[in-house]
Amino acid sequence: MKHSPLTAPSLPRCFSLPETPGGTFTDIAGTQAGVAQGAIKRAGRDDVVVLVAPGSAAAVTTRSTAAAAPCLWTRALVPGRAHAVVVNAGNANASTGVQGERDVRVTAAAAAQALGCAASEVLICSTGVIGVPMPMDRLVTAVVAAAQDLGPHGHRAARAILTTDLVPKEALVQVGDVRVAGIAKGSGMIHPDMATMLAFLATDAAVEPALLQEVLAAAVRRTFNAVTVDGDMSTNDTVTLHATGRGVEVRRGDPAEGALRDAVESVCLRLARAIARDGEGADHLLEVLVEGTADEATAMAAARAVARSPLVKTAIHGRDPNWGRIVGALGAAGVPLGGLDLDLAGVPVLRDGAPLPFDEAGASAALEAPDVQIHARLPGPGLGWAWGCDLSERYVHINADYRS
Amino acid sequence: MKHSPLTAPSLPRCFSLPETPGGTFTDIAGTQAGVAQGAIKRAGRDDVVVLVAPGSAAAVTTRSTAAAAPCLWTRALVPGRAHAVVVNAGNANASTGVQGERDVRVTAAAAAQALGCAASEVLICSTGVIGVPMPMDRLVTAVVAAAQDLGPHGHRAARAILTTDLVPKEALVQVGDVRVAGIAKGSGMIHPDMATMLAFLATDAAVEPALLQEVLAAAVRRTFNAVTVDGDMSTNDTVTLHATGRGVEVRRGDPAEGALRDAVESVCLRLARAIARDGEGADHLLEVLVEGTADEATAMAAARAVARSPLVKTAIHGRDPNWGRIVGALGAAGVPLGGLDLDLAGVPVLRDGAPLPFDEAGASAALEAPDVQIHARLPGPGLGWAWGCDLSERYVHINADYRS
Repeated sequence: MKHSPLTAPSLPRCFSLPETPGGTFTDIAGTQAGVAQGAIKRAGRDDVVVLVAPGSAAAVTTRSTAAAAPCLWTRALVPGRAHAVVVNAGNANASTGVQGERDVRVTAAAAAQALGCAASEVLICSTGVIGVPMPMDRLVTAVVAAAQDLGPHGHRAARAILTTDLVPKEALVQVGDVRVAGIAKGSGMIHPDMATMLAFLATDAAVEPALLQEVLAAAVRRTFNAVTVDGDMSTNDTVTLHATGRGVEVRRGDPAEGALRDAVESVCLRLARAIARDGEGADHLLEVLVEGTADEATAMAAARAVARSPLVKTAIHGRDPNWGRIVGALGAAGVPLGGLDLDLAGVPVLRDGAPLPFDEAGASAALEAPDVQIHARLPGPGLGWAWGCDLSERYVHINADYRS
Repeated sequence: MKHSPLTAPSLPRCFSLPETPGGTFTDIAGTQAGVAQGAIKRAGRDDVVVLVAPGSAAAVTTRSTAAAAPCLWTRALVPGRAHAVVVNAGNANASTGVQGERDVRVTAAAAAQALGCAASEVLICSTGVIGVPMPMDRLVTAVVAAAQDLGPHGHRAARAILTTDLVPKEALVQVGDVRVAGIAKGSGMIHPDMATMLAFLATDAAVEPALLQEVLAAAVRRTFNAVTVDGDMSTNDTVTLHATGRGVEVRRGDPAEGALRDAVESVCLRLARAIARDGEGADHLLEVLVEGTADEATAMAAARAVARSPLVKTAIHGRDPNWGRIVGALGAAGVPLGGLDLDLAGVPVLRDGAPLPFDEAGASAALEAPDVQIHARLPGPGLGWAWGCDLSERYVHINADYRS
């Protein structure tokens, strides 16, 4: 008997909303970006960005108990009104003690002076090596230079915030009259709860800070927190969302609220997938759909467990349709597996818990695709998803040599 | 100011009990082992073992909801009286549906007939590929051959149960009049809650099944469950403990009960460390000690989080004293980190939360050692530990190619 692939589940709207190609942060009215080089990395490499987006600001930061000084600073300022975000790549300013906290305040003050705002209107984000004091002289010089470079430089900003990433990550989505754009970095140390990723979103809508925070937190939960590259949560993960108020007003309960939620979630989704696709040393985006657990939280956790499993990730890397490792990961996650159906890269491999004969060579060929989907179906109502990537020798190489 | 390395915490007795070199399962009075080849792997490679140890039997099996048919069978028979264990390597008999359950019953019946006992006195353990029907004709032939080969073949048995392991794992410990020996396999898919590892222990003590089960469960929690190779829990993990009753009688509350607990835990500890040291593609045993969390459970979980972290594991592989990744892993595990002291390979790197200057080249040289210890100290009473290994390009290579 020939088995058909599982039909796609009914996914949230953010999965199907179209993006505007080529869009970036500074396509949002009221925003600007400035970029400078030489703060931490060798000269010739942009590593400091100032994003200006005066208005309401929201942010979600790491839940790590080792949260870096810039995260603690930013967390204390949102939801609220902000003028700008200062970002540096190359040094995380984490595990740097009271000196690190002092350095954040100095950075905010220097940026505020250069931008003509208050220090408490400057969010700070850092990414890079942990435990190394920030080279403050060079950082302050670069921050001032970036503040003098302001313009529609979203694309350059998206490149400057990268560390081991290979490609910049940008998206622009319009829903009704609401426009939302964003840029992101992140490739290693990525796991739900926002592991070493930074993302910066802006919208032209006018939104009160409290609502903006609520919209961002909901979107992050279903998008960035469904990404796992290596299962590590970082000390510095931060997503910010800025509303410049140049466009439509969005109040709670308005029809425009739905447009804002959809647009923010769609931008977050696009950036989250781009992060997984650009995982360190990865050849494949791994998309895991788990349908039919008791509830959504269980499905999300199960999907993340599969996307995180080194054995699943290495099998995908080796184009090996070794679906037993997927069942192993679901079982280890504690999901009751009675009646399990499973497709791997569109190939039916399990129906009602029983293995199906399948063409190994054909399945292996299907695993050559850049995007690989794992789709598990059980009889219940819960639906969850996660994105990850394969695990390659290059991942090990990159991470054994990161500092040298 | 020169900082001294942290002093060693006060570890449980099992850490310091001496073993008897060269000991193996069949050094326990009343036990025998038989080995055969060709059941699943190519001819010339032993892959089936029959361990005979008539007496009380206890076992701890995986908590995976995808537990394999042999685990379900074994779990139903313990604690109780058993005659033997049948072990095969190369096929896990997992995700094999009702056929897999039937195959387990047939295997037990065939072994029982060859050994002259009841099928319900035969425990079954399998390890290998998931989702492939067991080649029953060849397995039954090999089981009968192994049952005709019985003798003091512990060393051969320890080799035959291996899959991707490089070295056999055996230990013998005597405490007072109680002797306990064991053999184990396991190298990939290893994580607390017993991921693809098998271990078989025997003692000459006379112990009721219920007490034997209690002693084994306690030892497993503090030893095998503190090992992580790649964070995956398997469908087939099983540890059995057999008491042949040829030696001293151990009753609850006897002084001999303490000797039995210590000896069982010490053998489990030795086997657990040997599994971590032999992790797929690993060059280093990684021992993590976390001292001073709120309680032991938190400390054990935190130590496991560090030992599991791909970023920590790749840094160790690259001899990179990048201690920030350790702090990142502790933070991601949710441990309050106020006042953290940290030593990496005996090198003090953090005191009271502040980074110390240290000799990078010297620390990198210290990471050349085969055993690398990470020691984190906080102000509270909890103490925990975990063992893992570095993550190498070879791990990826082995696991991308496991089936081909």
